[in-house]
Amino acid sequence: MPVFQETSHECRDFRIIPSRELPLPRLTPRPAQSSSSHDKHEVVIIGAGPAGMMLTLLLARYGLGDTLMCYDSKPGTLKAGQADGLQPRTLEVLKSLDIADEILNHGCHMSEVAFWNPKTSISLGQEWGIERTSFAPDVIVAARYKHEVTIHQGRIERILEDNLNQYSPNSIQRSTKFIDFQLDPAGDTDYPLKIELEQETIDGKKTRKIIRSKYLVGADGAHSQVRRSMGLELTGETTDHIWGVADFVADTNFPDVRKRCAIHSDVGFVMIIPRERISSGQYLTRLYVQIKDEVPAEESDSSDPLSRRKSRNRRAAITLDFIMKQAQRVFFPYRFSIKKGMEVDWWAAYQIGQRMTSKFSMTDGSGQPRVFIVGDACHTHSPKAGQGMNVSMMDSYNLAWKLAYKIHGLSPQESSHSFLATYEDERLKVARQLIEFDTKFSSMFSGQIGSDSSVKGLTHEQFLKVFSDGSGFTSGCGIEYSQGILVQTPAIENSYPIDGDDYLQGTLKPGRRLLDSVVRRYADANLRHLQDDFLSTGRFRILVFTMLDLLDPQGISSKALTTICNNTIPTFPQGSVELVVLHPFLERAFEWADIPSCVKDVAEMKFHGPVHEELYRTYGVNQNTGAIVVVRPDGYVGIISSLSDPSQAETYLSRCLVRVL
Amino acid sequence: MPVFQETSHECRDFRIIPSRELPLPRLTPRPAQSSSSHDKHEVVIIGAGPAGMMLTLLLARYGLGDTLMCYDSKPGTLKAGQADGLQPRTLEVLKSLDIADEILNHGCHMSEVAFWNPKTSISLGQEWGIERTSFAPDVIVAARYKHEVTIHQGRIERILEDNLNQYSPNSIQRSTKFIDFQLDPAGDTDYPLKIELEQETIDGKKTRKIIRSKYLVGADGAHSQVRRSMGLELTGETTDHIWGVADFVADTNFPDVRKRCAIHSDVGFVMIIPRERISSGQYLTRLYVQIKDEVPAEESDSSDPLSRRKSRNRRAAITLDFIMKQAQRVFFPYRFSIKKGMEVDWWAAYQIGQRMTSKFSMTDGSGQPRVFIVGDACHTHSPKAGQGMNVSMMDSYNLAWKLAYKIHGLSPQESSHSFLATYEDERLKVARQLIEFDTKFSSMFSGQIGSDSSVKGLTHEQFLKVFSDGSGFTSGCGIEYSQGILVQTPAIENSYPIDGDDYLQGTLKPGRRLLDSVVRRYADANLRHLQDDFLSTGRFRILVFTMLDLLDPQGISSKALTTICNNTIPTFPQGSVELVVLHPFLERAFEWADIPSCVKDVAEMKFHGPVHEELYRTYGVNQNTGAIVVVRPDGYVGIISSLSDPSQAETYLSRCLVRVL
Repeated sequence: MPVFQETSHECRDFRIIPSRELPLPRLTPRPAQSSSSHDKHEVVIIGAGPAGMMLTLLLARYGLGDTLMCYDSKPGTLKAGQADGLQPRTLEVLKSLDIADEILNHGCHMSEVAFWNPKTSISLGQEWGIERTSFAPDVIVAARYKHEVTIHQGRIERILEDNLNQYSPNSIQRSTKFIDFQLDPAGDTDYPLKIELEQETIDGKKTRKIIRSKYLVGADGAHSQVRRSMGLELTGETTDHIWGVADFVADTNFPDVRKRCAIHSDVGFVMIIPRERISSGQYLTRLYVQIKDEVPAEESDSSDPLSRRKSRNRRAAITLDFIMKQAQRVFFPYRFSIKKGMEVDWWAAYQIGQRMTSKFSMTDGSGQPRVFIVGDACHTHSPKAGQGMNVSMMDSYNLAWKLAYKIHGLSPQESSHSFLATYEDERLKVARQLIEFDTKFSSMFSGQIGSDSSVKGLTHEQFLKVFSDGSGFTSGCGIEYSQGILVQTPAIENSYPIDGDDYLQGTLKPGRRLLDSVVRRYADANLRHLQDDFLSTGRFRILVFTMLDLLDPQGISSKALTTICNNTIPTFPQGSVELVVLHPFLERAFEWADIPSCVKDVAEMKFHGPVHEELYRTYGVNQNTGAIVVVRPDGYVGIISSLSDPSQAETYLSRCLVRVL
Repeated sequence: MPVFQETSHECRDFRIIPSRELPLPRLTPRPAQSSSSHDKHEVVIIGAGPAGMMLTLLLARYGLGDTLMCYDSKPGTLKAGQADGLQPRTLEVLKSLDIADEILNHGCHMSEVAFWNPKTSISLGQEWGIERTSFAPDVIVAARYKHEVTIHQGRIERILEDNLNQYSPNSIQRSTKFIDFQLDPAGDTDYPLKIELEQETIDGKKTRKIIRSKYLVGADGAHSQVRRSMGLELTGETTDHIWGVADFVADTNFPDVRKRCAIHSDVGFVMIIPRERISSGQYLTRLYVQIKDEVPAEESDSSDPLSRRKSRNRRAAITLDFIMKQAQRVFFPYRFSIKKGMEVDWWAAYQIGQRMTSKFSMTDGSGQPRVFIVGDACHTHSPKAGQGMNVSMMDSYNLAWKLAYKIHGLSPQESSHSFLATYEDERLKVARQLIEFDTKFSSMFSGQIGSDSSVKGLTHEQFLKVFSDGSGFTSGCGIEYSQGILVQTPAIENSYPIDGDDYLQGTLKPGRRLLDSVVRRYADANLRHLQDDFLSTGRFRILVFTMLDLLDPQGISSKALTTICNNTIPTFPQGSVELVVLHPFLERAFEWADIPSCVKDVAEMKFHGPVHEELYRTYGVNQNTGAIVVVRPDGYVGIISSLSDPSQAETYLSRCLVRVL
C-alpha cells in the first residue's frame, strides 16, 4: 500500500524481542554497584542442576538478576543427569514461566500405563511368559496436562538457562567449587555470610576466594557440601535391591514399548519409560531392570574388607549385557534388544535408597534463616516414580518468591523470620511424603506378582491401588501445604463458601494449588486458561468468584469488588496484588456499564466467564454465594473467604505483605 | 540414588539442543566448497522481510543452508514493517515449522468481530451516535486455530531468523543492494544467473560485485528491483480513498476495544484491530481510520504540477492529530484517545491500491524457470483484510519445496520445468483472488451504512455477507490450487471415495489443505494433532483411511497397506515419502499382531484412531470404503483414490518424484 506519511516511535523496536515479565517492586534500597560488589551478593546459589537453575531463574525474574550468583563446580552444562520425568504439576509451573512449549512439543508424553503380569492360564502348545492385565491412565487427577513428559534432563537445564540469559546473562559461574561458609555477622551485618570458593582455570590452576552474601542456597546435589557445612547429613536406610537402567533405541515386538509399563514376570521386574524422539527420527526407550541377585544391606555398608570385596565383585558383574539379558528373560516370549547399529545412550546400575535431612535451613543469631538447601541436597530416593527432578525444582519454586519478598522488603518486618521459615515447614513435609511414598512404591516393584497370587505375595489389585492412591503425589497436583502464616485453613463456620472435598478434581482448599480451567474472557471473547492469569511473576492474586447478583449495584458481588479494588489492593505495594474476576453467566448478557467500573479499571483482561456450566462446581463454589480466594505467588491457595467478608483477604495479605497505606 | 556403574555415549550430549528436522535427501552432487564458492550459490534471495526470510528458512531446513544466500539492503532487522495479522492457515504452517508457540502465547488472539452501525432509533434525550449491531466469530471455517493473531511484524521476522540461525547461521547478508541480473548461460551453464550487487560498508563506502546463482528469488517488496529487472511491473487501478492508521495504547470507554471491530458511523468508518500486550503490561490497539477528504485518482497520478501540489498539500494535512480527531467523531458518544503519558507506537497515512504483475517467474532458454518473485513484489493491496504478510509468506511456502526438489534432483527430469512452473500457476491465481477480494472488501469499508439503508447504500446484511463469503480466503484455509501435475482432480467415476462438498469444514478435495483433527495414537494412546504428522519437512505423505475390514488379512485395507509399504514407498528415494494410517475403531479392540506388520515397521508412531465418531465424516470418508490420500509437502492434497486402487497414488507420485526402483 502506498504510504505517504509514516512516523514510528523507538519504543516500537523493543516489540520484536521475546516477552519478559516485570520484576517485583523493591522497597529496600538496591545495593550499590561498586567495583568491590563482585564479591558481594544478595543470594549465592551453589549448584546449577535443575534445582539451582530453577532458583536462579526465578530470582532473576523477580528482579535479583544483578545481585545473585550461581556457582557450579563443573566446567560446562551438566550432561550426566539421569532424571527425565516431569509431572503434570511441574509442567504447569514451567508453563507459568513460559518455558513449557519445547518440552511439551518435543518430550515424550505418557498418557497411559500398561500392567503386565505372568500368564494366568496356558493353552496347549503355548509357552509361559507374560500377558497384559490392564491399562490405566497415567494421570487420574484433574490437571492442565493429563500426562507426564519424559525428556533429557540436560535439555531441561538448557531451556532454563536460555530463559535465565534473557533476564540475567551472567548469573552462572562455572568451574567453581564451594568449600565452606561461616556466619560472621561481625564482619558485615548486611552480608553476614562468608563463603569460601575454589576456582579452577582452564590450565587447571586452583585459587581460593572469599565472597560475602546475605543468603546462601545449597542446590549441590546428594553429596551437598553446603549441607555438610551446615552440619547436616542424609539419614535413612539403604535397602538391598539393585537395579539396572538403560536408555536406547529398542528393537522389539513387545506391543506396549511406547507406553509406561510395569512388567512383573516370574523371573523379575522391568519398568519401561518411553522417551523422546531423537534427531534421527527414532524414539528412545528407558528400561529399569530389577537385578535379582541381591546385596545384603550389611554387606554394602560393611567395613570388613572381605565383605566389601565380595560386594565390589558382585557390582562389577552388573554390565549392560547383564542388564539386557535379564530384561530379555522378563520380556519372554517377546523379543527385546538394542537396535542394530545404534549405541546405547546411557546405562547405569544403582541401589535403591531413601534418605533425607532433618532440617532444610539454618538461622543466624537473630533467628532469621540465612542458609537453605534444596533438591537432592535434602532428599534422595529411587527414580521409580519419576519424582526427583520435580520435587527438587518445586523446592526452589517454593523458596524463591519468599526470598525475593524478604530481600525486596515486601514481607512485613514483624513476620519475616517465620515467613522465610515456611520454606522448611512446607517442603520438609513434602520430602517426608516423598520418602514414604518411594519406600512403599519401590518395595512394591521389587515384590513379585504371581499367577497364583496367594503364594507369591502382592496381587495386581494391591499393586494398582498403591499406584492410584499415590497419584495425587506422583502427579504433583495433590501436594498440600499445611496451616501457617501463608496458609489459612478455614475455621468451621457457616460462611465458608466451599462445598465438597474432591480436592484432586479441583475443589478449592487452602494449601493446594489452583486447578486450571478454560474460561472465556469477557473483553475479547477469547478462550483462556485460568492459570495463565496466575503466572509465576511473584504476585499475590485475589480471585473473586462473583455470584448471580453481579449486575445489582447494591449486591454482595459489587460491594466485594469495590472494597477489594478501593481498599484491599491499594493497601499493599503497587503491583504486588492482582485481581482476577470470574462471573457465572454462560451468555454475554451484560455490558461493562452494568458492573462496577473498577473491574474494567483493575482487571479488564482478567475478567472471565464459564464456557460450560461446570466451572464454579469444579472449584466447589456455588454461584448463589460466590467466594473470595487469595492465591499465593506460587499458585497455592492461601485463604478462602465468603464473598460478603472481603476483610479476611486483607487480614491474610497483611501477614504476607507490608502495608503502604 | 547411589549409582555404582555408569556409562554414557557422547551422542547423548546432542539431546540437549533444540530439535532439528532432517534435511531432504539429495540425489544430485553437492557443490564443491571451494574458496571461490562464496560468489556462487544455488539460490539467491533478495529481501529479508517475511517472504524472503520464510523462503530462506525453508530452503535451509530442506538442506540448502550452505548453498544459498539472502541479501537485504538494510543494515539491520526490519523495524518498519506494518503488517501485523496472521491467518489461521499461516498459524498452521508456522506450527508445522515449530515456530508458532511464541506467536500464539504472546500475540493477540482475535476470536470475535463486533459490527457497529449508526443508531437505528433515538429515544428522547439520547444523542445520535453508534450502536453495536452484532458479534460474529472471526473464523467461521474449520481450522486448527479458530482465531487470527496480531503481533509486530518485526517480531515474526526475528522468530523466523532465530530459527534460521539454528539451521544455517550465516545465510543473511545485510547492507547489500540488488542492482541487476542477467541470464548468461554461456558463462557457466550450471550457474546461468549473473547477479550484480552493491555492498555498503559501515563507513558508507559502496562496492559492486558480481555473483552467480542457479536460481534467483525477488522478495524485495512492492518496489522490487528484481521485478523491474525481469521487465515486469505492478498494474492495476489506484482507488481514491485515503486512510490513516495508528498503533497506540488506548484510553476509551468504547466497550469492544479488545475485539476486531468494523464501525460504520454517519461521519465515516473506523476499524479496530486489537494488538498484543507490551512489556509494560498494557495492550496495543490499531485503528484504521477512513479519511473522508478524497483524492481524485487522476490528481494523484497527474503530471500536471499544479495538480500534484494540490495533492501534496492535501496529504500533508493528514497528521496524527487529524486521524485521532476523525476517529473521535466516529466513536461518538464514546471517548477514544491515546493513553496519557504514552507515545504512539507508529502511525501512517496511505491510499488504497490493488496492483499485481502478470507473471511471477522468468524462464531460461530451455524453458526452465530461473527467476521468481514472491510476496509484495507480485501483489500489493490494502491492509484491511490482514492478508499481506500471510499471502507473501505462503508464496514462499509454495515455492520453497519445489525449488529444493529441483536442486536436489528429487523431481523427475522429464517434468521438472513444469514442476517449477506450478509455483506461478498456483500462486498467480491466489494473487488474483486477493486483488479481487481486497477491491470488494475495501470499497465496502468505504461505503456507508446508514440507519436508512435504502438511501445510503450497503446494508449491514450485505456487509456481513461479503465478510462471511470471504472467510475461506481471509482465513487462508479455503485456498484451492487447481488441476496440474501436482493436483489431480478426480475423474467422475464411482470409485471416488469422498462424500459431500463441505470443503471449508474439512471435506477432502485435491488442491485444498488437509484439515487438522485430534486423534489418538495407537502406539502410546496419546492425543495428537493429525497435522503434526504433516510437518513442513518437505516430504510427501500417503494418508490411508483404512476401512472396517482392517483386521482381515485378506481385506482391502490390508492389501492396500501392503502394496503401499512394499511397492509404492520403496519406488521413491528413501525418506521422501512417509506413511500415515488412520483406523476407524473408537475402542482399542486389536493388537499389532492383528494388522499388517508393515504398519508397525513403517508407521509405528503415525497410526491413529478417532477420539469421537466424527473423524472420518469430517473428511468426507466413509468407514465402509476408506480412502487413500496423497498429501504434498506443503500440506495440500495432491490426489485422492479408492482404497482398492493404490496404484493411483504411485502414478501421481511418479510425476512429482524420481523413481529409484
